[in-house]
Amino acid sequence: MTATVHPIGRPAGAPATAPSLDPIMALVAQDLNSVNSVILDRMQSKIPLIPELAGHLIAGGGKRMRPMLTLASARLLDYPGTRHHKLAAAVEFIHTATLLHDDVVDGSDLRRGKKTANLVFGNPATVLVGDFLFSRSFELMVEDGSLKVLKILSGASAIIAEGEVDQLTAQRQIETSEERYLAIIGAKTAALFAAACRIAAVVAERDEQVELALDAYGRNLGIAFQLVDDAIDYVSDEATMGKGVGDDFRDGKVTLPVILAYAHGSPDERKFWEAAIIGHRTSDEDLAHATQLLRQHNAIDLTLDRARHFGQRAIDAIAGFPASKAKSALIETVEFAIARGY
Amino acid sequence: MTATVHPIGRPAGAPATAPSLDPIMALVAQDLNSVNSVILDRMQSKIPLIPELAGHLIAGGGKRMRPMLTLASARLLDYPGTRHHKLAAAVEFIHTATLLHDDVVDGSDLRRGKKTANLVFGNPATVLVGDFLFSRSFELMVEDGSLKVLKILSGASAIIAEGEVDQLTAQRQIETSEERYLAIIGAKTAALFAAACRIAAVVAERDEQVELALDAYGRNLGIAFQLVDDAIDYVSDEATMGKGVGDDFRDGKVTLPVILAYAHGSPDERKFWEAAIIGHRTSDEDLAHATQLLRQHNAIDLTLDRARHFGQRAIDAIAGFPASKAKSALIETVEFAIARGY
Repeated sequence: MTATVHPIGRPAGAPATAPSLDPIMALVAQDLNSVNSVILDRMQSKIPLIPELAGHLIAGGGKRMRPMLTLASARLLDYPGTRHHKLAAAVEFIHTATLLHDDVVDGSDLRRGKKTANLVFGNPATVLVGDFLFSRSFELMVEDGSLKVLKILSGASAIIAEGEVDQLTAQRQIETSEERYLAIIGAKTAALFAAACRIAAVVAERDEQVELALDAYGRNLGIAFQLVDDAIDYVSDEATMGKGVGDDFRDGKVTLPVILAYAHGSPDERKFWEAAIIGHRTSDEDLAHATQLLRQHNAIDLTLDRARHFGQRAIDAIAGFPASKAKSALIETVEFAIARGY
Repeated sequence: MTATVHPIGRPAGAPATAPSLDPIMALVAQDLNSVNSVILDRMQSKIPLIPELAGHLIAGGGKRMRPMLTLASARLLDYPGTRHHKLAAAVEFIHTATLLHDDVVDGSDLRRGKKTANLVFGNPATVLVGDFLFSRSFELMVEDGSLKVLKILSGASAIIAEGEVDQLTAQRQIETSEERYLAIIGAKTAALFAAACRIAAVVAERDEQVELALDAYGRNLGIAFQLVDDAIDYVSDEATMGKGVGDDFRDGKVTLPVILAYAHGSPDERKFWEAAIIGHRTSDEDLAHATQLLRQHNAIDLTLDRARHFGQRAIDAIAGFPASKAKSALIETVEFAIARGY
């Protein structure tokens, strides 16, 4: 079912260097320094535990994917100002707050290869510092003063929280459909990617069509990213993943690979998945069996096919912009997102 | 040390009817209906768990103290519009989000005489629905469109979170000073009271002096409220309190009554408090002993004296406004806050 794999967005037969984040990182390096200054400055508080806990995650080697998207989108539009530095920091604060609360919700113990904040500092402090960062992100937006940006990011925040609750409701429910799953990751992951790109069009004072193009780029990229993450959870190892392989399986998370293996599974296999997802199959052998079933039904490749589809939609969403370093960097970012799965 | 107790803000010897919330409730009854409509409308979501969990707390018999303060403050300024309805709902959403997260942080099982949301729905959903309500509150403010209101409420939210983290750091630390304690409740409780009142001056387009007067009224009222709550925790019973008596004691919370009893205590008594606050004295006998020590050192009355001081400052902050039903209602609200302790 999988087609020949070549980097999407480039002609087949073009040199097959592995796509990377290098172009986007080079493009926004200087801007990102400014964003990092804002982040470090604005996570401070007279309560020492706040920067300590926030710094554990923020300084902990995240890719700054979302702020980079704001910065690269602004470059795509030749925005000459600096308003987006504060706003990119606001986006990263929303993301960080979400991660802190996620780790509490999931009881995770590893993120980006480090112990999670909830494990080191406890759930109570982690919840509250998340709240603090969330409030700070709105303070940054208010300082910028654009009601349009505030509307986009407060809307995205509400949608993220809805998506997280929806995911919680779907947890341990093997009957989750692909449609519902896509709605969940569209909310909990892709909404902030979309908003991060879209606000660049607002600060650059471009028309709504440009806003919508960047929104679509970010949204589809976000879905592709999440789908590849879901695939990687079953095939990677802890060293490259920064979290334990099979974590989703042990947590009873119904991700797309599982949905597809279940859909294609025999009655016996379905019984296995049902038991696994309600938490009765959590051993290493169970995980090995699950992985074998995914392989047998091509579920990882099918998931990556879906990711490629959304990746292509992201690339096509910005097809109308003239060629530029920024455009190439945004395209290669999509290719990188997909290539991680292969 | 305690003076003769008469309702503050009225001459001694005036008829001693018990102060109540009746005047403020009568004053804002109609406005509050509109606010409740906004609250019910905007806590909806296509994810059924969200209104279910939010409604558990929101419909659970809270006094709507903070929205009432926004509404009464607007009346004090003869504001003729309706913008404050949405904003009062936003204030209540921030408050509700804070309560949900508080109950997770404290592991509480009773609030307003009902099982807490975390007990009924679990910590994960409670954290996430708090996040949702917080985002919704910003959406409401964005719809109103006042950057000044957004600044006041995002600032207050950050301060609340800081205060909560600070309180967490102070938990189980008997050496907490009265000064630090006042800073904590100033942040975690009084900041939102202050903001709730202040935003009325913004929508009524009054000058900064009016903003500051209402801010001071709310802030001092908030501190008074919290101090009386802290006293009541040791002297009330579950029926009137809506939570268990002695909860603060068992949680190792260093509130002002404890700070004062410790300050006045003998070396043996100090040892008792030290053991109690780190969690080694949690039996009913220990609570009885603690209560007896508080009585012996007059710590409850001293705490209520402090509350009266801040209550008086609240009343004096609005002394410059001409006499009106709204002003009387705001004054009686302060008197009610204090009288609960006696």
